[in-house]
Amino acid sequence: METKYEWGLEKNQANFRPLTPLDFIKRTASVYPDRISVIHGELRQTWAQTYSRSLKLASALQKRGIGKGDTVAVMLPNTPAMVEMHFGVPLSGAVLNCLNIRLDSESLAFMLQHGEAKIIFVDSEFSQVIFDAVKRIENPPVVIDVHDLLFTEEVRDIGEKEYEDFLLEGDDNFQGLWPKDEWDSLCLNYTSGTTGNPKGVVYSHRGAYLAALSNILEWDLPHHPIYLWTLPMFHCNGWTFPWVIAARAGVNVCLRKVVAEDIFKLMKEHKVSHYCGAPIVHNMLINADENLKNGLDHRVEAFVAGAAPPAAMIEGMVNMGFGITHVYGLTEVYGPASVCVKQESWQESSLGEQAKLNARQGVTYHLQSDITVLDPNTMKEVPHDGETIGELFFRGNITMKGYMKNPKATGEAFKGGWFHTGDLGVIYPDGYVKIKDRSKDIIISGGENISSIEVEDVLYQHPAVMLAAVVAKPDGKWGEVVCAFIELKNNTKVTAKEIQDHCRNILPGFKVPKEVYFEVLPKTSTGKIQKFELRKKLSSDSAIDV
Amino acid sequence: METKYEWGLEKNQANFRPLTPLDFIKRTASVYPDRISVIHGELRQTWAQTYSRSLKLASALQKRGIGKGDTVAVMLPNTPAMVEMHFGVPLSGAVLNCLNIRLDSESLAFMLQHGEAKIIFVDSEFSQVIFDAVKRIENPPVVIDVHDLLFTEEVRDIGEKEYEDFLLEGDDNFQGLWPKDEWDSLCLNYTSGTTGNPKGVVYSHRGAYLAALSNILEWDLPHHPIYLWTLPMFHCNGWTFPWVIAARAGVNVCLRKVVAEDIFKLMKEHKVSHYCGAPIVHNMLINADENLKNGLDHRVEAFVAGAAPPAAMIEGMVNMGFGITHVYGLTEVYGPASVCVKQESWQESSLGEQAKLNARQGVTYHLQSDITVLDPNTMKEVPHDGETIGELFFRGNITMKGYMKNPKATGEAFKGGWFHTGDLGVIYPDGYVKIKDRSKDIIISGGENISSIEVEDVLYQHPAVMLAAVVAKPDGKWGEVVCAFIELKNNTKVTAKEIQDHCRNILPGFKVPKEVYFEVLPKTSTGKIQKFELRKKLSSDSAIDV
Repeated sequence: METKYEWGLEKNQANFRPLTPLDFIKRTASVYPDRISVIHGELRQTWAQTYSRSLKLASALQKRGIGKGDTVAVMLPNTPAMVEMHFGVPLSGAVLNCLNIRLDSESLAFMLQHGEAKIIFVDSEFSQVIFDAVKRIENPPVVIDVHDLLFTEEVRDIGEKEYEDFLLEGDDNFQGLWPKDEWDSLCLNYTSGTTGNPKGVVYSHRGAYLAALSNILEWDLPHHPIYLWTLPMFHCNGWTFPWVIAARAGVNVCLRKVVAEDIFKLMKEHKVSHYCGAPIVHNMLINADENLKNGLDHRVEAFVAGAAPPAAMIEGMVNMGFGITHVYGLTEVYGPASVCVKQESWQESSLGEQAKLNARQGVTYHLQSDITVLDPNTMKEVPHDGETIGELFFRGNITMKGYMKNPKATGEAFKGGWFHTGDLGVIYPDGYVKIKDRSKDIIISGGENISSIEVEDVLYQHPAVMLAAVVAKPDGKWGEVVCAFIELKNNTKVTAKEIQDHCRNILPGFKVPKEVYFEVLPKTSTGKIQKFELRKKLSSDSAIDV
Repeated sequence: METKYEWGLEKNQANFRPLTPLDFIKRTASVYPDRISVIHGELRQTWAQTYSRSLKLASALQKRGIGKGDTVAVMLPNTPAMVEMHFGVPLSGAVLNCLNIRLDSESLAFMLQHGEAKIIFVDSEFSQVIFDAVKRIENPPVVIDVHDLLFTEEVRDIGEKEYEDFLLEGDDNFQGLWPKDEWDSLCLNYTSGTTGNPKGVVYSHRGAYLAALSNILEWDLPHHPIYLWTLPMFHCNGWTFPWVIAARAGVNVCLRKVVAEDIFKLMKEHKVSHYCGAPIVHNMLINADENLKNGLDHRVEAFVAGAAPPAAMIEGMVNMGFGITHVYGLTEVYGPASVCVKQESWQESSLGEQAKLNARQGVTYHLQSDITVLDPNTMKEVPHDGETIGELFFRGNITMKGYMKNPKATGEAFKGGWFHTGDLGVIYPDGYVKIKDRSKDIIISGGENISSIEVEDVLYQHPAVMLAAVVAKPDGKWGEVVCAFIELKNNTKVTAKEIQDHCRNILPGFKVPKEVYFEVLPKTSTGKIQKFELRKKLSSDSAIDV
């Protein structure tokens, strides 16, 4: 029976509209039509132009019969076309699938086939690998070449036509196809999938809208930020920042390649105010030549996530004069969905202590409901003692719809009404969570659990260490023993014994690496160190002890 | 048929949660338990305390059988109890009905009866009027007295018990009743109703959540604002700011009465960063004694809305060193839902010209969909010429569910898929809307439409004018003629002729007031000038021409 608070109070066109991040660009193009939206080399685009080009793109897609339920794939670095895709594709009703530009043709072929892409937009840099991928597919997508003004090598077109010509197929006065339901799918993002086939994570309009707002709230992101695209847009849709920057009427400073020289140059030239990245990006900046940093005299705010940042790195950023906010998440939660909120009381601690506090994964995002650590067997919260290890779980609107065409994996990921991250961690007495390891990265030696991250944190404190990874090596006596792989900074030299002595000063003996290897570490396309490659080396005995 | 983007991708407990502003206090109490939430005289409350008291309140209400579909009325000034009501009442599942503390017992009786309030919380200042109101009702609500530490007059209890004793009825470990549907009703707010019975505007959890976020976005409101409660919380739930301040983990500086001396004192003492108010409040501050302002050396940000602010007032605020953001809305759109966004290019204009630009009602709020001016007959947008008058319409999520138990009025308000504001206005070439008048306030003299606001704007430019109101007087020859009512600043003197001469210098002759009256103007409880009272005076000839 309807109560007085329901009767005659239904939703209608005047008081209800599906949430969608597309509304952000609509408003910004209308309120700030002449503000700069995109900077790329000599190119400047205004928000009116970006919106109008996005609508042209949407119209052109529609005329090709592409719309709701269809997939549009893109193989693009952080260029203006990539920004436009984040609006133009969903404005046609279709779902945007950003492919990882560092993948091989076999993986890409799998994704194009699994996602059933109808069309793909390809930056000239990736013509060959997409050409090879498309060859492998039975019903290949239409291919459109994208010529970027900052791609300076020889162009070899592989598609039906170029992007600018494709846009000409669109109508000038198309108004866009807006979602009727905010649960409609917006994007498809494949996980990196270190084991088995990649899974296709599906985002909704509602989720992306709330994730974008949550990023603004966490960062106190004011109107008109100047945002540098160090984070790949193909990675969780750049943590929703194409929509964030539209909502804030900011500037997208594009960047084809993450090179320290270019980054500092753009930061100075355009007074970049914000950027995001994995620890490896910030590490690169910290260790860059001092000449590059000279002249950067305004404060820059950075989001760091993508892997647990070593405390030494956070300290390095602060020393460089950058503001740093540590966030944590996964593809399944639209990028970051927890934040290490800095408390006023921490200011009384030493910088080193603060960095340690900041290195935790923290508390739930404003518009996410919960992050917590549960015993995965009982689904009960672990004690808030900073010691008892359980699994990290998320819950709330900033969580994917599920994995496409994979209800089994979706069911497992959401078992018990929580999203299972697969990361192991603890809760501190202040309610902050901290990752101790991926489930598969924990080392069990002589019956003791050893967090590889804890050991890595200590390794990073050594002045010669650029990157460090700690993995388990099977051992007849101990079950597993701790092994360290280290990439040294330029022009430094150090012995395994020196590293072990350094660790022994800080860690109990059983956590000190038994073996130490020096080499350039293998990384995934998103900058994460590939521990499974290191484990392979250990089992094949191909690594060389020095 | 389900597509690949729907199949197996349904909502579940892990990836969907109804939007509610109650989540804001839940997170803040967990992340910032020890930060100050409330300042009131010597009282300090933390967010952990405010949340725990709100849960106690919710539990006590539930134990009285009060929950979903029920109304809880409150008759409270801006005190700590009023802050708690905004969380405790909805945490019980019930709907919060904040009564206007300036109303008479007859109006209050109507609202209590129409809203079917089960219980009412009454500040001691309003014991008598509620006592009288409750007497008139057949099924009167339970009455709970609220003793406030800053109420210094004699207390005469009229209820069953006092608020603190009522709280003791609640359980300590109650977790709150959270909405299952974000469309559930959150609040009931009666419009002031200058004609006929007041209408009961119903808010949803979803609408309040998005309205609160939108206020944060418009204002670039950072973490931890110090917010002064100059705006009554009974007015559109303080434009959603009880929830805004919870979301931002800020401080509620309470204020029983709007007195310039107290306001400046609190601003200095607590470094108040933000406040909201109708033009009359800002006017009071602008015209306050200079002694009061001395020592206020930090920037304060103000939201102004509630009536179109005269350009001279905006200029006065800027001269005082306050930041001012002009927003516009109505009870039906959760308070403000449009904003006069300041454009960078305006900085080249004179301060006077900027004030004029700022005096417009502007563009749609971030998370509202549209504000526009339509011809109410054809529902077509008027030309963007700054001249063609139509009616202002809103559309989007920041719009009420409707009027309670009044589907006829709801249907009329939402006719054509837009919310009808009843305000008349124009659109400028830059897309900004400006109110010219309420439908009933427009003056038609000799066939010419005259905007009373335009004439008032000119009157405010006269240095002796404190408040001005322009209304129509029936006239045999012209149909209507322009009449001005003026409240002068202290220690000023001016004649009707001087005012008319002043107007003639700026306005065409037919817009110059034919009659000018000097008197203290009648105001509504929310500070709006009551033009209908002025019109009554004109028809009864009780006004005195000077």
